[in-house]
Amino acid sequence: MKVLLSLKTGRTYYYNENGDYHCKEGSFTEKELKSENNRLTSNKGTEFLISDSNLYDKAQKIKRGPQILITKDLGYILARAGIDKNSTILEAGGGSGAATCFFARFVKKVLTYEIRKDHCDIIEKNINNFGLKNVKLINKNLADDIEKLSADFVFLDMPEPIEVLEKKLSKIASGSLICCYLPSITQISNLIQFINENKKDELYTEEISEIIHREWKINSRVARPNHQKETDHTAFLVFLRKI
Amino acid sequence: MKVLLSLKTGRTYYYNENGDYHCKEGSFTEKELKSENNRLTSNKGTEFLISDSNLYDKAQKIKRGPQILITKDLGYILARAGIDKNSTILEAGGGSGAATCFFARFVKKVLTYEIRKDHCDIIEKNINNFGLKNVKLINKNLADDIEKLSADFVFLDMPEPIEVLEKKLSKIASGSLICCYLPSITQISNLIQFINENKKDELYTEEISEIIHREWKINSRVARPNHQKETDHTAFLVFLRKI
Amino acid sequence: MKVLLSLKTGRTYYYNENGDYHCKEGSFTEKELKSENNRLTSNKGTEFLISDSNLYDKAQKIKRGPQILITKDLGYILARAGIDKNSTILEAGGGSGAATCFFARFVKKVLTYEIRKDHCDIIEKNINNFGLKNVKLINKNLADDIEKLSADFVFLDMPEPIEVLEKKLSKIASGSLICCYLPSITQISNLIQFINENKKDELYTEEISEIIHREWKINSRVARPNHQKETDHTAFLVFLRKI
Amino acid sequence: MKVLLSLKTGRTYYYNENGDYHCKEGSFTEKELKSENNRLTSNKGTEFLISDSNLYDKAQKIKRGPQILITKDLGYILARAGIDKNSTILEAGGGSGAATCFFARFVKKVLTYEIRKDHCDIIEKNINNFGLKNVKLINKNLADDIEKLSADFVFLDMPEPIEVLEKKLSKIASGSLICCYLPSITQISNLIQFINENKKDELYTEEISEIIHREWKINSRVARPNHQKETDHTAFLVFLRKI
Repeated sequence: MKVLLSLKTGRTYYYNENGDYHCKEGSFTEKELKSENNRLTSNKGTEFLISDSNLYDKAQKIKRGPQILITKDLGYILARAGIDKNSTILEAGGGSGAATCFFARFVKKVLTYEIRKDHCDIIEKNINNFGLKNVKLINKNLADDIEKLSADFVFLDMPEPIEVLEKKLSKIASGSLICCYLPSITQISNLIQFINENKKDELYTEEISEIIHREWKINSRVARPNHQKETDHTAFLVFLRKI
Repeated sequence: MKVLLSLKTGRTYYYNENGDYHCKEGSFTEKELKSENNRLTSNKGTEFLISDSNLYDKAQKIKRGPQILITKDLGYILARAGIDKNSTILEAGGGSGAATCFFARFVKKVLTYEIRKDHCDIIEKNINNFGLKNVKLINKNLADDIEKLSADFVFLDMPEPIEVLEKKLSKIASGSLICCYLPSITQISNLIQFINENKKDELYTEEISEIIHREWKINSRVARPNHQKETDHTAFLVFLRKI
Repeated sequence: MKVLLSLKTGRTYYYNENGDYHCKEGSFTEKELKSENNRLTSNKGTEFLISDSNLYDKAQKIKRGPQILITKDLGYILARAGIDKNSTILEAGGGSGAATCFFARFVKKVLTYEIRKDHCDIIEKNINNFGLKNVKLINKNLADDIEKLSADFVFLDMPEPIEVLEKKLSKIASGSLICCYLPSITQISNLIQFINENKKDELYTEEISEIIHREWKINSRVARPNHQKETDHTAFLVFLRKI
Repeated sequence: MKVLLSLKTGRTYYYNENGDYHCKEGSFTEKELKSENNRLTSNKGTEFLISDSNLYDKAQKIKRGPQILITKDLGYILARAGIDKNSTILEAGGGSGAATCFFARFVKKVLTYEIRKDHCDIIEKNINNFGLKNVKLINKNLADDIEKLSADFVFLDMPEPIEVLEKKLSKIASGSLICCYLPSITQISNLIQFINENKKDELYTEEISEIIHREWKINSRVARPNHQKETDHTAFLVFLRKI
């Protein structure tokens, strides 16, 4: 895959290396795109830089939804999880597989539970597009299996994580972290109350965080936050420690 | 290593599994700490939960400085770098090795250049404490070697990244990202100006970001941002794409 | 003026007390709107609360542009200006008169310089709509007159405040503040450099601030930042003290 | 009052125009301070600019506590309140009188209820220091009197505003705003629930906001957020409209 960077608008386009390419800012022939030339002018006169792609580009291409918002959260979750590339992650929810594919790029194994068959189909497609071999996808409610599963880190992207956490978590090792991804303070309050009443010797609320991503526009004339790219709220991250 | 979590103050203490343990909130005997009991009361009457440790704990223990601030940035950098666990990172600067040890946990190889001998000693100690075998540490200015080095991602935590970027970067593959970590807008303006004047066909300024980490305090009575833990500014992240 | 608050969408509509009223969410007859009834159902079945208006409503109605963004900045500027209702404000720029009308509601007198005739026409219209008698609007460059003007606070909403500040400011009393409203760090750097080189005994850079406004959605089910209402960057506020 | 601005540390000192002045950065004689000279060097060699004071300085001097944090909130509250200098504000709570003195500088009359006698004494002292003649301070619970009081804007800086809001508010005109200043989301949830259950035809939750103040350090060498001056969380602002 090639990446086409418009020097006029700053937009990014992806080219899958077959045939000519057409976008709003003009078109290129296959011959031009396969030349050694890194700087091309479209037939509408817009200048582009042409580069090879990396795995972030690939994640942008195959995924639906606001990937850039999710990057801020995924990065912090991985960095905070207390794991490394030899670890196993147990994960539930999340629909499109963005987190699944991200985690699988950096750890040994990801075990993904997803209750909806249609979401499983999307996740599977994305796993295949990335060529990932270390994901096991299970079309089932994690709450049904959690009591017999072990993992180095658990990530719950579901509206009711209590369904999972109310089960026996005896296979999850002491010191492991569990991250719940919750958009609303109300959900967090309910979770904290549940832990205080039912799991106070087993789960410790170690951190509740919010990651805010602010993009800047800086060139020879201006230096200011980028109006178009202020990040919306996504969710709060609740890190629980298994005791 | 064991982790001691005070239920009174929320403070975290680390115990290296030898002898009794004393802290401001009281003491425990070795026998207590090695028992199966997950909830202990110190001799001053404070209740603690006792858990095993994870790699985040380990990073807290061996490192100097505000690790929690750095986690927000390191996570985003890794997630944005467009790489995976088979990648090689080339890195320069950063003093204590926090970034080095973090990256090495998730990728195949880290090549670290550090110009100061005293900093190299600290980095080496931290690498050894983590038992990392995939870091190569070189006590030299990266600018001297960059022309013959290849990498999937380059991370420059140095006040003058132009020293490195003004060299020929022909071994860095097209599509790879280079991240400069710069505290001040002034440094970024200088960098952008340098690129526009000297490298406009070779380096594309893809993103300039700031990651803000906000911690919350939520329990049965309150739900508000945590006064004591508002994060200071650390640095801006400039992502350049090699064309 | 009446205010119509949709309980379905949360939208606000303004009714000027003449005739029937039609909006996207349905219509009301004049008779309904002039009844004592505070809760009405539109002909499309949407429930509304009906209230009298206040001066904030009035500011929303007559003004173009993102008033809610400006409120955050105007409030801080007035609170930081070191003045009271007996003060005189000297102001330049700002196009539509939002700042003019706001300041005039709280201080004794506002002297407004605006170089463009078309902008003067809009400002004048807004001043009249508010019925303000304490604004003097002058279609002229403030730089031409500043040397003979006194004021308790000066507000410069213009891209090149140096044009004004390079003049003799001897009529501006020691201790008075001058606020420059600048969208870009680059403009601020230029301003600070100008002061350091030319006015270091006359102007002291007391504070450079940014005001961020975050709106929340809280009801019985959710409590989270409001996606639709995250505030974009407007401008930085530079407060200079006249020595 | 004179203001002494250290060019070395950026600190601000206040001089009440009697006798010599001593601070950490050196001392000045009364003669020096009363000279026409705007730039003085302390006996320890630190350079200062000397300026007259404004009302913001005065507010800094007489008040205890983090005034700069409060300025961000007070400014927004006044700007959002929908009032002007002819308005009457009814206010309860707030301890030291910071809000009282601020509002009184910009509106016709402030009626302040404070239940604690010791707080009343502090507020009275601050009112007198400011020479304000338009504040009426009443040592009583506002909930006892609210049913017979009218106002153009109501500001409730108290942990339990429901105590006041559960009373009949028939003297508060339709369209007037009531602002509750609450540090915790939990308090806001309780308030919203109370309104939904008891006052849904009388009070409309128009806006819930948080104002964040970020200070910058910009000079010829650096341009970055000011580490020492990141603002802590103070409180959320809930604006209710009387229907």
